[in-house]
Amino acid sequence: MPCEKEAFHQLAILVLRIGHRLVRDDRATTHLFLAARALGADTAVYSGQKDMGVENSLDKVKKAWGGSFKLEYTYNWKRFLEDHRSQGWKIIHLTMYGLPIESTIEDIRSNPADKIVVVGGPKVPSDVYEIADWNLSVTSQPHSEISALSVFLHEFFKGNELSKEFYNGELRITPQAKGKKVTRQTST
Amino acid sequence: MPCEKEAFHQLAILVLRIGHRLVRDDRATTHLFLAARALGADTAVYSGQKDMGVENSLDKVKKAWGGSFKLEYTYNWKRFLEDHRSQGWKIIHLTMYGLPIESTIEDIRSNPADKIVVVGGPKVPSDVYEIADWNLSVTSQPHSEISALSVFLHEFFKGNELSKEFYNGELRITPQAKGKKVTRQTST
Repeated sequence: MPCEKEAFHQLAILVLRIGHRLVRDDRATTHLFLAARALGADTAVYSGQKDMGVENSLDKVKKAWGGSFKLEYTYNWKRFLEDHRSQGWKIIHLTMYGLPIESTIEDIRSNPADKIVVVGGPKVPSDVYEIADWNLSVTSQPHSEISALSVFLHEFFKGNELSKEFYNGELRITPQAKGKKVTRQTST
Repeated sequence: MPCEKEAFHQLAILVLRIGHRLVRDDRATTHLFLAARALGADTAVYSGQKDMGVENSLDKVKKAWGGSFKLEYTYNWKRFLEDHRSQGWKIIHLTMYGLPIESTIEDIRSNPADKIVVVGGPKVPSDVYEIADWNLSVTSQPHSEISALSVFLHEFFKGNELSKEFYNGELRITPQAKGKKVTRQTST
């Protein structure tokens, strides 16, 4: 069995999605977590309505495509943040109202603590702005939490996340100039 | 009236979304176009089912937040691509099966032609792979077309898109370390 060598970075990076709503948010939250997984986060946690559809989608992707990404649910996001903060984690809140990523990313990168990236959406409670160590904007224009998270992770990891390996999946893509090449992995 | 000075780059960058479906895709396509707008694309075009909901959402954002982003519909995406290609445009297709962005972006950046970025989704017709000048992957893992487009635009523009100005909007954010500061613009 191939050993797990996903740790291309030394810190834990956790994405917290606040206020998930069944049906209405299922696709957006699933895509958010898939982006978190593909772009180097270790764990996603969500609050709001518990959603087995989202959880099953992530399980299927992990089984097919590998890696050790974890998805968890918390009923009380505020306590979750406070508990982690008291253990030394630092909190980044992605919001179009925050300070530009261009002027904050180096400060965040050079901070040695484990990190939580909070993704709230337009109706995020004002508490989040207070508890965050950085309120960070990816442009001050409205767009998408998926987009903001993706640019943040790509900047945070300086592009190294793009070559992250995902072990123990059933399928593997061999990149092609044209067409698709997918091979089924045999367990060893 | 402030003059329009959005041209932080010299080329036209157009995002083409193929196969939009009413209701099912409305939020994903809206977020895709908002990300395209916020991260420096000039124009988005979509095919599939015409969707006044998506178009109205983009109009509202443009009215409130400014800029000259255009959204158009085409019935025949293949003819649209062929026509543009015959006029010298180059075509990039974002797909998890394509060649890694790390090894292709410099080639794309240094190409002087106007560009179309095609976002198709899992059931994109195989013709797209053939007509594209570059089939490009942002990781070979499944995630989100919004995520892939965002990382692509951010890489393509080398981060300069983050400081793009959007003129003639009604609202403007002043970035804050905590909280929200939005001011209403007065026409001059």
